[in-house]
Amino acid sequence: MEAFNDFRKQSLPLIEKEMENFINEYTANDHLKTAMLYSIHAGGKRFRPLLVLAVIRSFNKKVQIHDYQVAAALEMIHTYSLIHDDLPAMDDDDLRRGKATNHKVFGEAHAILAGDGLLTAAFQLIAISQIESNQKVLLIQLLSKAAGTQGMVAGQAGDLQGEERSLSLNELADVHEKKTGALIEFALLAGGILAEQPKEVVDLLGRFAQHLGLAFQIKDDLLDATSSEEELGKQVGRDEVLNKSTYPSLLGLDGAKQALDEQLEKGRSTLETIKQTSSEFHLELLLELLEQLQLG
Amino acid sequence: MEAFNDFRKQSLPLIEKEMENFINEYTANDHLKTAMLYSIHAGGKRFRPLLVLAVIRSFNKKVQIHDYQVAAALEMIHTYSLIHDDLPAMDDDDLRRGKATNHKVFGEAHAILAGDGLLTAAFQLIAISQIESNQKVLLIQLLSKAAGTQGMVAGQAGDLQGEERSLSLNELADVHEKKTGALIEFALLAGGILAEQPKEVVDLLGRFAQHLGLAFQIKDDLLDATSSEEELGKQVGRDEVLNKSTYPSLLGLDGAKQALDEQLEKGRSTLETIKQTSSEFHLELLLELLEQLQLG
Repeated sequence: MEAFNDFRKQSLPLIEKEMENFINEYTANDHLKTAMLYSIHAGGKRFRPLLVLAVIRSFNKKVQIHDYQVAAALEMIHTYSLIHDDLPAMDDDDLRRGKATNHKVFGEAHAILAGDGLLTAAFQLIAISQIESNQKVLLIQLLSKAAGTQGMVAGQAGDLQGEERSLSLNELADVHEKKTGALIEFALLAGGILAEQPKEVVDLLGRFAQHLGLAFQIKDDLLDATSSEEELGKQVGRDEVLNKSTYPSLLGLDGAKQALDEQLEKGRSTLETIKQTSSEFHLELLLELLEQLQLG
Repeated sequence: MEAFNDFRKQSLPLIEKEMENFINEYTANDHLKTAMLYSIHAGGKRFRPLLVLAVIRSFNKKVQIHDYQVAAALEMIHTYSLIHDDLPAMDDDDLRRGKATNHKVFGEAHAILAGDGLLTAAFQLIAISQIESNQKVLLIQLLSKAAGTQGMVAGQAGDLQGEERSLSLNELADVHEKKTGALIEFALLAGGILAEQPKEVVDLLGRFAQHLGLAFQIKDDLLDATSSEEELGKQVGRDEVLNKSTYPSLLGLDGAKQALDEQLEKGRSTLETIKQTSSEFHLELLLELLEQLQLG
């Protein structure tokens, strides 16, 4: 099994190529195309698409073009959500990954459309891919559920409400489960489905996703509370300015660090369970990915 | 064959029920649900979903629940596009169908999310419907193409650019073909597919859609240029204020009226061709619908 960094280096250009190819071929307005590609090229960790592919590799399957397409579709959904989230009416961010946000470059109207375009393109890319129809329908069901009114969009709405009043720890966990957890869960489920695993294993991958998603969010909150703008490449301390409920604000810095450790431990243990359930499964890649959420 | 008004009266509550049921059952945030339902309940002609069902009835098929679901999905896409289009950064409209626009009631951030939610929900509704998988995939391919970066979103981007400079008649036709024509074309194609028509007939329905869509847009431009706010239930004369290229601005009022008549005539003649091609086809419903675009 290759190490995570090798896997990452090998996979990133192929995920990016699928996004670029699709946008170049399927966008009928040049200005819209430029605005969409700007945010696609703004980089980022590509955490979600790498997860899809890491799961497939963990079952020792060769990653095929349609797997990259599903990974690319997921990253396009994530990218659309960042563009809309950065808008003045939402989080009003000027910087994202060290670059000007989409609406600072193209104006608000074109940024709204670039987001709408990427969201729609994600479903189109899966719909036209070379995946068997029943599997394709299942992936579109899961992605629309994760990205939409039962998942990310509902989480964003809850997050906005959290700026207007304090949330309890349970409400905060629910907002995060929808806002970031749902797409991470999709990544794990899609990887399991594309690797043709039985329902029992796909369900365990979903359980792993819960711990991974929560760890991811706590880490994100901790970074916003403790990093410099230079380190993070985006404005920091925004949560406090916006009076958002976060893990550090509700649990204190130490409490949040402890909550992060707990989720990482539960994640490790779930990987062990998957290994015991499926003889094909190698846990190294996902374990390494999990460890990257460890505080440095 | 029933008359169009009977068909309309009978169909409208069922289309609306499918949209409501889906949103009520599949939205995990109450504020988001309220904002989405607000625009769904704002009414409108329901032109696009009625087209889907009118095609199915024109082939003497019984309209089934999954047909209403596809019609509802299409209307949700149309409704999302109106919410985003009305935003201050886009057309900045305060009134829509005589009611305050979504962002005037819920604020811009929630209006953006209500639009994102409806767009995603449309794909989810088709993906979970009781349609055979291959047909479902085909419908999602066509809808994402019509609504996205090859269709409506590209048209919106072109429309914005049209506010910044004058468009030629060809450029204007291209913008409209994408902005409004593509969803109308989807309605006709989806109706033909759901009525299980052969490709030859579906293609002719697509040709009819071209004329219908163009007629629809010219009529819309003419109404904006010549009606009062009271008659139309929304702000009028916006095209002129925004310095938009329109059919009346490029062809004059008389030229635009003549262009409308030409498209209606070509539409009628295409319906005759479909009747000659398919013995199952009754042209009355679609013809009546076309005649409603006649200037009063």
